[in-house]
Parts: sequence; structure tokens; C-alpha cells
Amino acid sequence: MSKTILVLGGDGFCGWPTALRLSAEGHRVTIIDNLSRRRIDAELGAGSLTPITDMPTRLAAWQRVTGRHIDFLATDIAQDPEGLHAAIKAINPDTVVHFAEQRAAPYSMRDAAHKRYTVDNNIGATHNVLAALAAIKPDTHLVHLGTMGVYGYDGDGLELPEGYLDVTVKGPDDKAYARSILYPTQPGSIYHLTKSMDQLLFQFYARNDALPITDLHQGIVWGTQTADTRLDHALINRFDYDGDYGTVLNRFLMQAAVGHPLTVHGTGGQTRAFINIQDTVRCVSLAVANPPQRGERVKILNQVAETHRIADLAALVADVTGCEVALVDNPRKEAAENTLKVSNRSFRAMGLEPMLLREALLDETLEIVQRFKARANINAVPATALWTSENRPGIVPAKAAAA
Amino acid sequence: MSKTILVLGGDGFCGWPTALRLSAEGHRVTIIDNLSRRRIDAELGAGSLTPITDMPTRLAAWQRVTGRHIDFLATDIAQDPEGLHAAIKAINPDTVVHFAEQRAAPYSMRDAAHKRYTVDNNIGATHNVLAALAAIKPDTHLVHLGTMGVYGYDGDGLELPEGYLDVTVKGPDDKAYARSILYPTQPGSIYHLTKSMDQLLFQFYARNDALPITDLHQGIVWGTQTADTRLDHALINRFDYDGDYGTVLNRFLMQAAVGHPLTVHGTGGQTRAFINIQDTVRCVSLAVANPPQRGERVKILNQVAETHRIADLAALVADVTGCEVALVDNPRKEAAENTLKVSNRSFRAMGLEPMLLREALLDETLEIVQRFKARANINAVPATALWTSENRPGIVPAKAAAA
Repeated sequence: MSKTILVLGGDGFCGWPTALRLSAEGHRVTIIDNLSRRRIDAELGAGSLTPITDMPTRLAAWQRVTGRHIDFLATDIAQDPEGLHAAIKAINPDTVVHFAEQRAAPYSMRDAAHKRYTVDNNIGATHNVLAALAAIKPDTHLVHLGTMGVYGYDGDGLELPEGYLDVTVKGPDDKAYARSILYPTQPGSIYHLTKSMDQLLFQFYARNDALPITDLHQGIVWGTQTADTRLDHALINRFDYDGDYGTVLNRFLMQAAVGHPLTVHGTGGQTRAFINIQDTVRCVSLAVANPPQRGERVKILNQVAETHRIADLAALVADVTGCEVALVDNPRKEAAENTLKVSNRSFRAMGLEPMLLREALLDETLEIVQRFKARANINAVPATALWTSENRPGIVPAKAAAA
Repeated sequence: MSKTILVLGGDGFCGWPTALRLSAEGHRVTIIDNLSRRRIDAELGAGSLTPITDMPTRLAAWQRVTGRHIDFLATDIAQDPEGLHAAIKAINPDTVVHFAEQRAAPYSMRDAAHKRYTVDNNIGATHNVLAALAAIKPDTHLVHLGTMGVYGYDGDGLELPEGYLDVTVKGPDDKAYARSILYPTQPGSIYHLTKSMDQLLFQFYARNDALPITDLHQGIVWGTQTADTRLDHALINRFDYDGDYGTVLNRFLMQAAVGHPLTVHGTGGQTRAFINIQDTVRCVSLAVANPPQRGERVKILNQVAETHRIADLAALVADVTGCEVALVDNPRKEAAENTLKVSNRSFRAMGLEPMLLREALLDETLEIVQRFKARANINAVPATALWTSENRPGIVPAKAAAA
């Protein structure tokens, strides 16, 4: 069924290919984006490795190649709630897909000003959308991109459920009380903290206003292009390799391409969940097609394909590229080693068969890196955010990976 | 030990008498307040029943009567983080007591604009303080006024603990996993939601930056004056009786004073926790004197004296005043009836012996109401916030209370 869909943050790494996919599927798509990611490119001196085109050029190329039209509004939904309100009234969406949040943990930890920006932007954006939908069109399905990071990484072997936990409490009266609760979050950065706070916003609006909401707890995304962004050079997706926005795999591949040792934080024993960008797009499409009922609690889905230890990823890239691995101090307050088991039963049940990160599949990213590496600012690759005031990062004696 | 203390929101109902108490105890006190509560008085057409004086007059009176000086800065800590930053640098506080949040649940539910104001103001204020302290002086003790309302009212008999719950989770592997977690919140209004979100902010900054933080989960406050505000007529504390800011007991007494039936929402079977304003002040003083260690988790204390059913409170006021009780539709999405057991062991252990709300103790409030009732805007007494768009409040057939 063709839907009217508003994609908030549709200029970003996940938002852009998602908007194209939803348009390709026959939905009427409008993108709202304040283009903040491009502003931050300029701030950090590290733009997309790939030569992304500006929004009018991208959208004209999409129309030329597919005959499909996507609308675009350059509204800042955190700063201009009245503009958002007017857009929702005019567009009357069936579904709002919300990517419009600052998404880099290191960027969110740079200093007090960046912490404030991340909280004000992310909480403002999410809450302004919820308040507007409750007032204007409370049967609109809101699909939000969250993160696996809200769960924290306890690493005691408990499989991460899809959002909720059934627990038993022993009261002071020695009776046992049962509760079904939101997974108690342990966010490790201000960015992850905002996604935890988002969960409370969603819980409230689902309960008070019966908004139908889906929250996608996504793993770390790898890969660059999707079937849709490959259709024309002007549709190319962004590729971040810097210490703030570059995800771990992209940074390894970039370092390998320029002959820099692969920098692993701490022991590399951190285990994380991963998903390919093509599957991100597929999952959002499945979420859009399967809304919860009004009055149901928030539908929380783990959007992940597999888990890997960071050291194993580094070893894989080292093996493919012949590059060395260097262990550096970890600025983050996180466990040096953790196990990670994650349920992704819901998307599996909807038919997702995710791509797995095998050597062969690194090829696409390696190819992107080789093709565009002359565009890179290599100084921007190391992570420089300090996390806490007592941290002073430094490279500890480099050793080759035990690959 | 004399401390340097910053009181954020020191012009408000709880903040003002607390600032006086801390000053009387010999601490060096600076108040920061944006005077938003007085702006909202003008917005709602329902100012304090008591004739509160402006800040310079109040502070001059305090100095005249006690010889003690309190500094005042009219900074908006949510809107002007740089001003807050500069103030913290200049004052170098040992303790920051944070009351600077919009505190009325009905006001927070009026419409989309008031929801946004409450989220932006409360989350902005709390986070700006935390980011500034982490950057400038992370050993500062932050004491925050939270609310019992974050717990929600499950009413299945489990005594509400002081912030944390020890739970057991049965994993899909049939093993039992133990977790000590923040009590899973079920806030019933946007106001309460912001206090739940505050808890995540505190958890993060206590963990990442080792900020020592105390969060006070306070019950509904009754009473008006304290020993300090009684010292001079210019020191009088505010008394709110309107449908937004007036707490339930104040509204009953105000209605009784003008011969209006006491309006009880729903069946009156809601059970809530209460504390007198004098004990609020005493509890904050005890919290200031007993900070957690750096690196400890957030110290959460229940700041309550006793619990009552709303219908019983109405019956008590009806009995004392001869007034009738009227049951009206309840706009809030809450259980019609609930039980409530609350632990207040920590403050009891620190020596708190709270005043209880017996008939005799209503005298002070009745006296205030009688003395100033000519100042009241009676039209402002009923609660008008709708909570959800489908609500249309109306008075259901009035019946006398079964007192």
C-alpha cells in the first residue's frame, strides 16, 4: 500500500538511502533536513570521502533516473517547531521516519558546548515531533532510528532482548513482584544518552496519546552504497572516515588504504553488533510496513545482523590489506572486554536475511576507499574526543594483531 | 561546615524557603532564578495568594532581619548556558541545589507549546548544569529536587524503594541474571517525564565524570510558611491555588474558603505521598550536609512524610470546613485507585521526624487562605489541562463525601 511518508534527517548516511528506497517502493516521500551534517563536515574539516551532491542535484538525479519525485524542506525541527507543525499539517503523513539526530558519540563528547548541542538537538527534535503528532495526527506511525548502545554492554551473558525485560523483584515484604520494563539503559556517551531519553519520550506518548511508535535499536552500520544510490553517480551515499563520525570499520579501511596502522581502542575486546547499510534500508522499509496498533506499547526491534569483537575486525582488515594493528588508549568509559548476544527475532520473522560481514563483502568499501582516498583528510581519522576531563589519549606500544 | 551554595530556582515555592534556611545555617548562598514562575503567574491570571515581594525587597528584608546576605543573579540557565558557566566559575560552589524546573503537571499538559516549553526548559536547565560542572568543577555536589511521580503508581503493593530496584531476569538460556537498576519509571505527565529523563542524565554524569549527585524524590508539598519566611512580612512564601500550580490540598482549602465544593478527580482513590514545606527545607539541608562520594552512583532519597488517599484528604477538609465534595471527571491517564507504600528510611536515619498532616496542622494553611482570599481569582481554581486530545472534562453528578 502506497503511503505518505515524511523522512526527517533524509540527507544523512542512513536517511538518504532510506528515502530513496521508500520512494522506489512507490511511497510519496518528503524529506525534512536542516543539513546540519554538512555544516559539521565543515566544522571538522572532514567531509564525506565520497563526493556527495547537494540536495537539489540529488533529488533531480533521482527524478531523472526513476521518474519519481521526492519533496524537500530545509526545516530545523529542533529549532523551528512551528515549521514542523505546519509541514505535518500540510503533508498529513501516514508515517514519519525520524533520523534527525546528531549521531556521533565522540562528537557528542568533545566539550560542554557539543554535549549541549547534542542534547538540545536530539531531545528537541524527538519531542517536537511527538508533541506535533499528538496535537495534529496521533494515528501517524512514527519510526525512529535508535541504537543498540542504549542497552549498554554488561557482558554477563544475558541475551539482549528487543527492548523489554521481564523481571522479578523481591519486595521488603518478601513477596515476589513481576514487572515488564524497558531494558534499563547504561548509555556510554551523551549521544547514546539522548537515545535512552528518547525511549522515555516514546513510552510516554504511546501511553498518553496512543501514538503508534516503532523504535529501531540499530547496530554499527558498515558499507556505503545501496542498490538505489548506485543508480547514478549523483546519488552516491556519504562515507565518513573521521574520528568522530567514521564507524570503526570505515576507519580501519581508510587507515589501511593510506598505510596507517589500524588503531584499536584498548584491547579490542569490545564486542559490538553490526549491520550493512542495505539491510538498514530494508529494515526501515519492513518497520514502515508493520506498524504497531494504536494503544500498544512502543514496538522495539533490534536492527542487527551479527556481532564481532573489534580486535577480530581489525585482524580481518589487517589480513585483507596487509596492514598492522596498533593498540591505543581507550578514551571511553567502557568495559575492556565484553560478550554480546542480541536477539533479532522480529526482523528475522519479517523475512530479513542480513548480509554478513565476510571478507568478500569488504570489497565494496575497499573499492570506495581506494577510488576516493585522495579526497581524505588523514589528520581527521584519529578519535580526539576525551570523554572525561582526566583523559589524555596517547598511543601505547604498537603490536601486530594476533590474526 | 560553612559551604558556598548556589540555589537554582531560588525564587520559587520550595527554592525560596530553602535558600533562607541554608543562609540561616551560615552557608554563603547565591540564588540564580529567571523569575519564570512570576511570568507564568501573569500568563495564568493567578498569582500567589500571598503577597510575595520582589527579589530585591525579599533579600533586603532578609539582610535587615538576620544580618545575612544572599546574592542574586537573574540568569536563565536553560537559555543562557554561557551565563551559567560564568557564574559557576566566579562562585566556585561546593554545592548546587537545583530547583530550576517547570514543576506543574497540568501546565506541562496544556498544549504542544507548553509541552515543548517544559521539556526544553527542564532538560536544558538540568543538562546545562551537569555539562558546566563536569567541565569546571566536577567535585561539586549537585542536589536536585525530583518527584515521587517518576515512580508511577503501579499499586500492586510493592513498597517504593529509594531509587533503585534489585531485580532478577530469567534469560532465554533459563539462567537467572541479577541487576540493580534505576526504578523503571512510568511518568504520568510531561512534567514527570522530564524528571524521569533527568534521572538518566544524572546516572550518566555520575558514571562518566564521577559527579556527586543527590536526587530527592519529593511528595506533594503542603503548607506555606517556614520559620524563616515568618520572620518578616516581606519574606512571605508563595501560595498557589490555581488548577495548574495549586497542589491538591491548597485547592481544597481555597475552594472551602469561598464555599465552592471540593473538586475531586475521578473516585479520589488515588493515593499520593505528602510532605510539609518546613520538612522540604529540612530535607534539602540534610542532603547538602551528606553528599555521596565521587564515583558513587546517584544518591536517591524519598522526601516524603506520609501517604493519603485524595478522597480522605477531601473528607478531612470537608469535615473541618463543612464544605461539600464534588467528584469530577479525571483528565489524567492514571489508575482510578492505587495503594502506595514508600520507603523514607534514609531521611529517617538522618534524623528527620516529619510533621504529619493532621487536622490541627491544616490551621496554618486555613489561616493563610482566610487572610488573603480576597486576592484570589476563583475562576483559576479548576484544572483545565486536557492531558489527551479526546478528553472533555465535565462535572459528574456531585455527591457528598463519605466522610
